[in-house]
Amino acid sequence: MPASDRPLLTRSTFRVRFAETDQMGVVHHAAYVVYLEQGRTDLMRIHGAPYTDLEANGLSLAVSEINVRYHASARYDEEVTVETWLERLQSRSVTLAYRVVDTATSRELVTATTRLICIDRQSHVQRIPTDWAAPFAEALSDHPPKVQ
Amino acid sequence: MPASDRPLLTRSTFRVRFAETDQMGVVHHAAYVVYLEQGRTDLMRIHGAPYTDLEANGLSLAVSEINVRYHASARYDEEVTVETWLERLQSRSVTLAYRVVDTATSRELVTATTRLICIDRQSHVQRIPTDWAAPFAEALSDHPPKVQ
Amino acid sequence: MPASDRPLLTRSTFRVRFAETDQMGVVHHAAYVVYLEQGRTDLMRIHGAPYTDLEANGLSLAVSEINVRYHASARYDEEVTVETWLERLQSRSVTLAYRVVDTATSRELVTATTRLICIDRQSHVQRIPTDWAAPFAEALSDHPPKVQ
Amino acid sequence: MPASDRPLLTRSTFRVRFAETDQMGVVHHAAYVVYLEQGRTDLMRIHGAPYTDLEANGLSLAVSEINVRYHASARYDEEVTVETWLERLQSRSVTLAYRVVDTATSRELVTATTRLICIDRQSHVQRIPTDWAAPFAEALSDHPPKVQ
Repeated sequence: MPASDRPLLTRSTFRVRFAETDQMGVVHHAAYVVYLEQGRTDLMRIHGAPYTDLEANGLSLAVSEINVRYHASARYDEEVTVETWLERLQSRSVTLAYRVVDTATSRELVTATTRLICIDRQSHVQRIPTDWAAPFAEALSDHPPKVQ
Repeated sequence: MPASDRPLLTRSTFRVRFAETDQMGVVHHAAYVVYLEQGRTDLMRIHGAPYTDLEANGLSLAVSEINVRYHASARYDEEVTVETWLERLQSRSVTLAYRVVDTATSRELVTATTRLICIDRQSHVQRIPTDWAAPFAEALSDHPPKVQ
Repeated sequence: MPASDRPLLTRSTFRVRFAETDQMGVVHHAAYVVYLEQGRTDLMRIHGAPYTDLEANGLSLAVSEINVRYHASARYDEEVTVETWLERLQSRSVTLAYRVVDTATSRELVTATTRLICIDRQSHVQRIPTDWAAPFAEALSDHPPKVQ
Repeated sequence: MPASDRPLLTRSTFRVRFAETDQMGVVHHAAYVVYLEQGRTDLMRIHGAPYTDLEANGLSLAVSEINVRYHASARYDEEVTVETWLERLQSRSVTLAYRVVDTATSRELVTATTRLICIDRQSHVQRIPTDWAAPFAEALSDHPPKVQ
């Protein structure tokens, strides 16, 4: 899939920590869930919608769904790259998609999607502020879904 | 869904640890992935197919897919119960299903499925040993899938 | 050291989670830091000074110091017991001591101390409320430090 | 303390992950233990004694002691820098020292030391291979301890 089909595509590169491995000698599957979170944090900050701004307005994005497929394993001290992009924006939720690859070989390790819902401090669902999400809306208008 | 429709249904109860919370004041979504792992460890041990036995034979169950839906949040020091049951057994993989509930109120917090693939030390896919998986096969023969 | 020399001695028993192991095949050293936290959460709840009560008053106990010695290793699915007791109570801080043992064999795995400081929501140091800490003060008066 | 008094001083900079925060709104104290591990992994790789080389020889460095003091808190998405340096090299152990600072302000967050012992696959204590540790020995000969 070319980058042009992946709105706001963001790459986050870091090394696997020893604590993230398990006794199978590879990265534990729950650690990738944290890697995805790092990916979307970077996407939001880099593209002008920092998550900390949303929080300053008393709002959060609560994870409502994650779907992760594991294809291959990363190991201690290897560099991995999380590719994160915007899949869908709705009034109250946003869906992001991810590929985690071995930075050196580009081998695909994990593919995933996560859906986040906007909530306030009382856990009530709220509209995502239009201002904050403007970079998302704009990116999607530049990347209209293909007619299939 | 009655327990009778959930083969090998196992309940694991424990309290939320402080380290598992995040700055939203609730359990971080990745922590539930570890809770599910606790659930299937207990299911396997209690029903006569301990995971440590599989490992002693040089085999592992690698997670190939997780799908988690988050419905409500648990908080620090609350008791949660992971309900784990067997959904499907194939020659090389096993699929488990889960509900995480607030122990005190039975409120549903999370529902999930995970698929595990049997691999050897070289990460090659292998058949799940029939002996080890006998309790699984037997449970499924007692709980034939419904004609729908 | 007999229990009588360990005020408020509390035992917390649970199994090692797979996610807590690392590629050395044993529990990762940072996981014990979380075990200690579980130990003091239990001590406080069981002895009538639940941490959630302190938080309800806008106060927290921030960890100011941890000292951990690692003597032997626990493995996946083994039961461990955290023994936690009160070492010292000061107006603004409390020091707890710990032993983590293999439940089956009583082998000592870890010994540790942690110092916690009472702070408010602005991170200012505060006195520990006398009411909340009454069980601690009482226990220490029953266990006066030995003249040495 | 000038860098010249801190042999092999290495700086590792990264951002705080959301999963590393807790309900106090700051980085959980156990997360810093993982940060320190990142620091020493980087020190070893950068200075020519990669930990993966030691492991390839069937050896590990098991943590035998950690001492951590917490001075101030880091928050989500802030950049922190771990400064790691060599404190002591013995035939079978190595002691590293650390400062974690807020990258933007240089405010000191954590100071720590960790002692690591060389063990083989049977957990027997072994001498640290001279070849592997040559960069450490050399650095210490360049930084003789001060007469005090």
